[in-house]
Amino acid sequence: MRGLMMGRFQPFHLGHLDLVKQILKECDEIIILVTSSQFNYLEKDPFTAGERLEMIHDSLKESEVDLKKCMVLAIENQFNIATWSSYLKSMLPHFDKVYSGNDYVKMLLADAEIEVVKPSFLDRDQYNATKIRSMIVSDKNWEKFVPSSVYAFIKKIDGKHRLKIIDKSDTTPTEH
Amino acid sequence: MRGLMMGRFQPFHLGHLDLVKQILKECDEIIILVTSSQFNYLEKDPFTAGERLEMIHDSLKESEVDLKKCMVLAIENQFNIATWSSYLKSMLPHFDKVYSGNDYVKMLLADAEIEVVKPSFLDRDQYNATKIRSMIVSDKNWEKFVPSSVYAFIKKIDGKHRLKIIDKSDTTPTEH
Amino acid sequence: MRGLMMGRFQPFHLGHLDLVKQILKECDEIIILVTSSQFNYLEKDPFTAGERLEMIHDSLKESEVDLKKCMVLAIENQFNIATWSSYLKSMLPHFDKVYSGNDYVKMLLADAEIEVVKPSFLDRDQYNATKIRSMIVSDKNWEKFVPSSVYAFIKKIDGKHRLKIIDKSDTTPTEH
Amino acid sequence: MRGLMMGRFQPFHLGHLDLVKQILKECDEIIILVTSSQFNYLEKDPFTAGERLEMIHDSLKESEVDLKKCMVLAIENQFNIATWSSYLKSMLPHFDKVYSGNDYVKMLLADAEIEVVKPSFLDRDQYNATKIRSMIVSDKNWEKFVPSSVYAFIKKIDGKHRLKIIDKSDTTPTEH
Amino acid sequence: MRGLMMGRFQPFHLGHLDLVKQILKECDEIIILVTSSQFNYLEKDPFTAGERLEMIHDSLKESEVDLKKCMVLAIENQFNIATWSSYLKSMLPHFDKVYSGNDYVKMLLADAEIEVVKPSFLDRDQYNATKIRSMIVSDKNWEKFVPSSVYAFIKKIDGKHRLKIIDKSDTTPTEH
Amino acid sequence: MRGLMMGRFQPFHLGHLDLVKQILKECDEIIILVTSSQFNYLEKDPFTAGERLEMIHDSLKESEVDLKKCMVLAIENQFNIATWSSYLKSMLPHFDKVYSGNDYVKMLLADAEIEVVKPSFLDRDQYNATKIRSMIVSDKNWEKFVPSSVYAFIKKIDGKHRLKIIDKSDTTPTEH
Repeated sequence: MRGLMMGRFQPFHLGHLDLVKQILKECDEIIILVTSSQFNYLEKDPFTAGERLEMIHDSLKESEVDLKKCMVLAIENQFNIATWSSYLKSMLPHFDKVYSGNDYVKMLLADAEIEVVKPSFLDRDQYNATKIRSMIVSDKNWEKFVPSSVYAFIKKIDGKHRLKIIDKSDTTPTEH
Repeated sequence: MRGLMMGRFQPFHLGHLDLVKQILKECDEIIILVTSSQFNYLEKDPFTAGERLEMIHDSLKESEVDLKKCMVLAIENQFNIATWSSYLKSMLPHFDKVYSGNDYVKMLLADAEIEVVKPSFLDRDQYNATKIRSMIVSDKNWEKFVPSSVYAFIKKIDGKHRLKIIDKSDTTPTEH
Repeated sequence: MRGLMMGRFQPFHLGHLDLVKQILKECDEIIILVTSSQFNYLEKDPFTAGERLEMIHDSLKESEVDLKKCMVLAIENQFNIATWSSYLKSMLPHFDKVYSGNDYVKMLLADAEIEVVKPSFLDRDQYNATKIRSMIVSDKNWEKFVPSSVYAFIKKIDGKHRLKIIDKSDTTPTEH
Repeated sequence: MRGLMMGRFQPFHLGHLDLVKQILKECDEIIILVTSSQFNYLEKDPFTAGERLEMIHDSLKESEVDLKKCMVLAIENQFNIATWSSYLKSMLPHFDKVYSGNDYVKMLLADAEIEVVKPSFLDRDQYNATKIRSMIVSDKNWEKFVPSSVYAFIKKIDGKHRLKIIDKSDTTPTEH
Repeated sequence: MRGLMMGRFQPFHLGHLDLVKQILKECDEIIILVTSSQFNYLEKDPFTAGERLEMIHDSLKESEVDLKKCMVLAIENQFNIATWSSYLKSMLPHFDKVYSGNDYVKMLLADAEIEVVKPSFLDRDQYNATKIRSMIVSDKNWEKFVPSSVYAFIKKIDGKHRLKIIDKSDTTPTEH
Repeated sequence: MRGLMMGRFQPFHLGHLDLVKQILKECDEIIILVTSSQFNYLEKDPFTAGERLEMIHDSLKESEVDLKKCMVLAIENQFNIATWSSYLKSMLPHFDKVYSGNDYVKMLLADAEIEVVKPSFLDRDQYNATKIRSMIVSDKNWEKFVPSSVYAFIKKIDGKHRLKIIDKSDTTPTEH
């Protein structure tokens, strides 16, 4: 039995990690899927797919998670949403169910007869990527919401600087 | 003489059908063009191109319209707008004029020396796709604004459910 | 019951028309789907989607076919073939079966549980688009292999000139 | 020594021209790069790449600038921003430094070890493309903010009409 | 120290597995990168990215390889080759060197100052994906060239049938 | 009067330069357009757009050509050939005629009522980019077919090495 969870993971936080652990109680293996992989250096998508994969990998190593049971992958978004479930199937190893609290995801997968399970989430007001990004920018205490290796990684690449610059900017590259 | 009308038709309503009839009084044939065909399951574009084509086809059959005179087609949007009229020409059978109340469309086609005719519309505050979509979500009485087959089709695929889910969602697939 | 047939129709010939008639004996409605719609002015794809749609429409009108039962549509090719059947479903009105002699098509649709029926074809060595294109270039007698309106249309746009130029050219636009 | 400056140039104004002159004091040659070249007929991007190239070329001719030292080029935006500096390098002649006041640009180029110089700008509240576009629409006196040939060019193509139509329109081509 | 190896892995064979083991002797971690991930059901690319990821994952599990040290990822090809190394960097976790016997790869990475190491390969005439695919089609004894789980997987999905159909076909979906 | 010439310029040679001079005898200005700008490091397209622009710019400087009259630009190929002339118009400054010996180009532009002039070429068997590329690989004496600055540039970037590597390679990046 293989379960799938997905997200943009901008960044991967303790709520996400908690979900990984839940799924591994019920499934033999898990696919952790980084979505919107083609986007980066944008307000809602500051980190590259590579950076996100690395943060997740490090977080799994640091925690109690058995890496042998984990496939951490990334996928581009595409615009034809009606074909999305078939796109997932073509790009991913077989999966038996999807863990998601998103009714939109559920609707799309239902048509493809893919089972969607609604997990219980850690306090979502606290463990929330948008909130964490804004805490990083304003130097609030965000350390406790993410795995230590995510904290260390974002420090190392000076993520605060990147987020601040993106925040101030009203355009993507080019405009004077 | 072949006339062209176009729209996203999300959904096709009685104002659109009325325009079809007007055009067929002046032209031998009509092309009814579904635009933005690559988009679906989005707030402004909830129905797939296939669903829209089917609703239009059914509406024409149900009404007095002579189907032999109608070509119902779909086309993707493209980003280079300056080449749009030439794109239309490459993807469509020959057409002699375009019926549109949109000055933007008129401007783009003028450069390509395509005649644009401004039709008279049924009451556009009433017959308005945005308004109809919001009536569907809030269970208002929208039946009278669309052909019966559009009404039946949207019931059959449970369009209300889809619109509601899209409405609540703040992202396209994936985000937790 | 709605049947689907598809092809590049470069050009639409009497073998195709014969298949339309076969399908309409078994189905209430037919979708005739022009594939590779984004390609044109190429050796294997000389005619634009618009020209192909027009030739098919004219051929159906000229013959005994009931146009009310026909939807003539065009679709772009896409590169992720594993999602092709789901792409078809999103872009087309509902269809119940597909008529195709192509095992490749059958394999792809089988996974999506779409029924594929192998029709009997008119003599495929004779009624063959590649052969017809080469007869056009070399001024052989190709008139008898296509509906009269296809013949007239290709004459009108001077298709022979276009095919000859493409034939001689070893590149698409630009190269000296 | 070759310097690079870039912008959408919607339209090219005296602030841009002033920057060209500054750069030519420090560098032997300049690349003036029109970005977002694939966009046009949009609110923030009304002019085509071709029109922008022509306005810049004419402005340089009209002013004291030595055209032999100028390469005026255009480039499409792309979505994977993390690869943007390498994309620039592949599409442009070698450049030694980039003149930009944009911290976002600086951040992206820094990783590629490209030197970014912050120029001094003419009064940016005055010489500002967004403001100039809105002055054009409302018939304010915008003539003094652009080179005469930009003024003449926009008059010739009736840019005011185009901007007004785009302004009123709430969608790109198609919608009724 | 993290090493990168890449290939289309159509399919993953014992030569590839041997390389994984070599790299893990020299590096702490490995990224195994499936390239051309967007292609499938084609002569040179019969298996989907998902299938390839699954075969690799199963092969690593079956063999002596420590999965905790392995990241198995997939990436699309892109056409602008000059930006390829920067694209790799944006899509992958940090890597320190690349193992490749391909001079072309070496040339592209050299400009980005990425170290390329030429590994020794198992007999490449024997362990060769093209050859294995043709042995599958003609029912030769290919079992000994691939990990058992690759053999089992291809049997399970009836890969021979797929390869045969693709082989016979002279076009991708659509053509009659 | 502005004339347009175009080519892939892989590389720009004395035949191309001769054509520039011819055109400048008849026109006030010339656009020299590098096509297929998105391709590079391929057998028929080894040099990037940036490199080609630089070689052309250097060649014009070195020769008698008045750079003030020259616009050297680059453009991507696109697949919908029927819209090509309109794409050219959107991406280029106004041009009055096109100099091309290619009947295919002439056919495409004729429909858009663009005048095409057939220039006389320097001996095309001698001044031929394909031939020059193969001379570079095999160390023949190719110096006399290109402007000195093209020769110097290709030496500087070690173009021979690049061409040789590409030549030996049977795939684009990735394959083992």
